Amino acid sequence: MAEVVSFKKDAATGQAPISVAVNDGVARLTLANPPANALSIAVMETLMDELDKAAADRDVRVVVIASTGKVFSAGHDLKEMTARRGDGDRGRAFFERTIRLAADLMLKITHLPKPVIAEIDGLATAAGCQLVASCDLAICTDKSTFCTPGVNIGLFCSTPMVAVSRAAHRKQAMEMLLTGETIDASTAKDFGLVNRIVPQEYLSQVVQKYASVIASKSPLTLKIGKEAFYRQIEMPVEEAYDYAARVMVENMLVRDAEEGIGAFLEKRHPEWTGE
Amino acid sequence: MAEVVSFKKDAATGQAPISVAVNDGVARLTLANPPANALSIAVMETLMDELDKAAADRDVRVVVIASTGKVFSAGHDLKEMTARRGDGDRGRAFFERTIRLAADLMLKITHLPKPVIAEIDGLATAAGCQLVASCDLAICTDKSTFCTPGVNIGLFCSTPMVAVSRAAHRKQAMEMLLTGETIDASTAKDFGLVNRIVPQEYLSQVVQKYASVIASKSPLTLKIGKEAFYRQIEMPVEEAYDYAARVMVENMLVRDAEEGIGAFLEKRHPEWTGE
Amino acid sequence: MAEVVSFKKDAATGQAPISVAVNDGVARLTLANPPANALSIAVMETLMDELDKAAADRDVRVVVIASTGKVFSAGHDLKEMTARRGDGDRGRAFFERTIRLAADLMLKITHLPKPVIAEIDGLATAAGCQLVASCDLAICTDKSTFCTPGVNIGLFCSTPMVAVSRAAHRKQAMEMLLTGETIDASTAKDFGLVNRIVPQEYLSQVVQKYASVIASKSPLTLKIGKEAFYRQIEMPVEEAYDYAARVMVENMLVRDAEEGIGAFLEKRHPEWTGE
Repeated sequence: MAEVVSFKKDAATGQAPISVAVNDGVARLTLANPPANALSIAVMETLMDELDKAAADRDVRVVVIASTGKVFSAGHDLKEMTARRGDGDRGRAFFERTIRLAADLMLKITHLPKPVIAEIDGLATAAGCQLVASCDLAICTDKSTFCTPGVNIGLFCSTPMVAVSRAAHRKQAMEMLLTGETIDASTAKDFGLVNRIVPQEYLSQVVQKYASVIASKSPLTLKIGKEAFYRQIEMPVEEAYDYAARVMVENMLVRDAEEGIGAFLEKRHPEWTGE
Repeated sequence: MAEVVSFKKDAATGQAPISVAVNDGVARLTLANPPANALSIAVMETLMDELDKAAADRDVRVVVIASTGKVFSAGHDLKEMTARRGDGDRGRAFFERTIRLAADLMLKITHLPKPVIAEIDGLATAAGCQLVASCDLAICTDKSTFCTPGVNIGLFCSTPMVAVSRAAHRKQAMEMLLTGETIDASTAKDFGLVNRIVPQEYLSQVVQKYASVIASKSPLTLKIGKEAFYRQIEMPVEEAYDYAARVMVENMLVRDAEEGIGAFLEKRHPEWTGE
Repeated sequence: MAEVVSFKKDAATGQAPISVAVNDGVARLTLANPPANALSIAVMETLMDELDKAAADRDVRVVVIASTGKVFSAGHDLKEMTARRGDGDRGRAFFERTIRLAADLMLKITHLPKPVIAEIDGLATAAGCQLVASCDLAICTDKSTFCTPGVNIGLFCSTPMVAVSRAAHRKQAMEMLLTGETIDASTAKDFGLVNRIVPQEYLSQVVQKYASVIASKSPLTLKIGKEAFYRQIEMPVEEAYDYAARVMVENMLVRDAEEGIGAFLEKRHPEWTGE
């Protein structure tokens, strides 16, 4: 397994906050800063760089975001943020940078031309929960838990709720946001935050299975479809049909659709060229 | 039972692709082109004609879309489409016509002034799944299955996803679209794609019960309410209330509301005139 | 327990239609007009006044809307409305006032700077169901039932559907609206209409627990978060992130966030000032 350690290292610890491995079309980005796997500036910038690399790498067809330790991610680094309250602007510029960067990270996942799967084993909280909600798919262990607890510390999870309230029904999102309470995996699945719950010993296998199933599709088709999904969902239905119909006609005329439909009719395996 | 076979016949088979029966206020449109019940141009045009007739027929209060055989509908006719790759424009005009027609069919269901119930026993795939998602209600057998498998053949289910992503949560819709896997009836109900699952031997009875309950309401009230539902759902909430409040005041002033409320207060059955 | 009876009294009965009690930061507004707890003009105006008072009262951090008797609320007063059909305008002005007032009541709940919890024990129907759907959270007994039965009396529940269709999936909302049938508590939870179901003997305790958990948060943070929730949910995702990021930076700079984060890092209880 080709473990490629990312270059950016944490200034304080000298450790790379994310490890990267690419195998069989799947890029596995692992938050490796336990126990909190905090989304510090360094971690978020590294993650965005790695997502850009994954987007550009023709060998990568699917991205998995995982983590080490008992916490998937505890969100932003409150110590890092609190330390900047002494700045001349009381930290405003630093807070803006942190929160904007998190929003940009989440939007980068949404706009990435390749599917992104969150693999969760442990607690996903605040921006960590936002990260789960922002991935296209999420698979977790039965021990995983989720919360948006900003309300407990006077800082409402306003940007996490952008992602959470688009994944779940309103009252369920509101319950998480107003109470700050932790929900278990089963409740998270009921809410629409995760797709599947598996025992811990099967987690990586099941995620790998999802990833390899998706990696076996035409990368061009995945790119076309994922982009269209997030664009059409924000349109009124008639406009969405106008747009999606145009997308589908263009998709029909690419080589991979001709190959895929031909292979289906001829009962053989398709050979994708990504064109 | 007055079985009225529709006029349009399939050029190749000479068979009418849809059978139509109207009984007790319920128009039952049955896809009768097994095994695939493909949504070919001929089938879609016939279905749209029959929906127009149902809309115009004062004796019809509810429409049921059902099918014969083990597949509810396998979506578009891939052979029909592939045959047109030899056209001067590589099939573009034909693909545009097919996909536009499917979008228009789905929007016609949404805009029909009468409720439409999908009765599913078997596999609903691609545009067949879109058809289920586009009906106002859907009732299926416990053996029914659903998928949007375009990604398997290089052609992402971009127009089906317009309907599926408006019925289900995002991550669940994405799972269907990215993996192309088939989900069972129970999962489809969890996702919000169907309203009820029944054993096969009860399917037509249960659908008939729903249809007759709805057919017993004022057709004018159903028309007002269905139209308002799909319009208000796309508005910001304040605008939606402005609009829905106007709709409700006008509804209050029609004869059927006066009759309905009067009958309720007098504990008698209402007599609808549809005015 | 300081039971403060509201001043506005019903002209016909001389009874105050709502009783109000404020304890430990929770304002409890109880519909006290059984058996129907109808949302007459008097009841809605009183409820809006009490919500305004709760918004202005620094001692109130959470509002609970409950009711007495076996019906949570049966919606508008059909007798009151029918009596006005004899007006010169056939009741139009009165219907407009009633329906507009209900919409304004629901929007006031949404815009209230404090969380509102519905406590339901019994039937919530028509505008009563709209009231449940419009509260931020809803907790009900296992005997509670819900419906939007306007279609049965010729008057589609068009304004209730604005709230119901934003809480539940489309097909599930449509099933309630088109059939007019009553759903049980468990189905309402599946639909997303309620957050939690409890046995009747625990209802007030569980609601009180939710209310006191939420009342223990910074009222300023709750205000910021609740307002942002309903604003961002109607925006396209990129705009929502721009907006929510600005909200979160401002939130970070208020005193309660500094106190809350400081208390968290120092492992002590925060002291909110609401500033």
